[in-house]
Amino acid sequence: MARMVKHDKNSPYEVPEGTELPLYICACGLSKNKPFCDGTHKKTRDENPADTYVYDDAGRTCVIKQY
Amino acid sequence: MARMVKHDKNSPYEVPEGTELPLYICACGLSKNKPFCDGTHKKTRDENPADTYVYDDAGRTCVIKQY
Repeated sequence: MARMVKHDKNSPYEVPEGTELPLYICACGLSKNKPFCDGTHKKTRDENPADTYVYDDAGRTCVIKQY
Repeated sequence: MARMVKHDKNSPYEVPEGTELPLYICACGLSKNKPFCDGTHKKTRDENPADTYVYDDAGRTCVIKQY
């Protein structure tokens, strides 16, 4: 499973001293609360493992289909 | 500036208790040491702000060009 996600930042997020741990950091790319996980990865669980998707507010589109 | 980055994980990274802070979390999408920043965002600093790119080991390709 995989997806193409648009990134427009060009410097890292800082997690400052004093932040309570553990933390869960977005890895699926789709969180609306980056850098933190907001649970959106659940939407990716039924992706076809061979295909590549793009997500937007309307849902997802398969952009690379493996036959 | 923006780029499309492939994500294939479908669950978050955990930053466990006892991790030393501060931390710098990748936001450009290009780090090879995710979720942590490895400085790769420096490659994005000369992106044309209106365009969208894809990066690979050979460099970058402009995939959406704004005229």
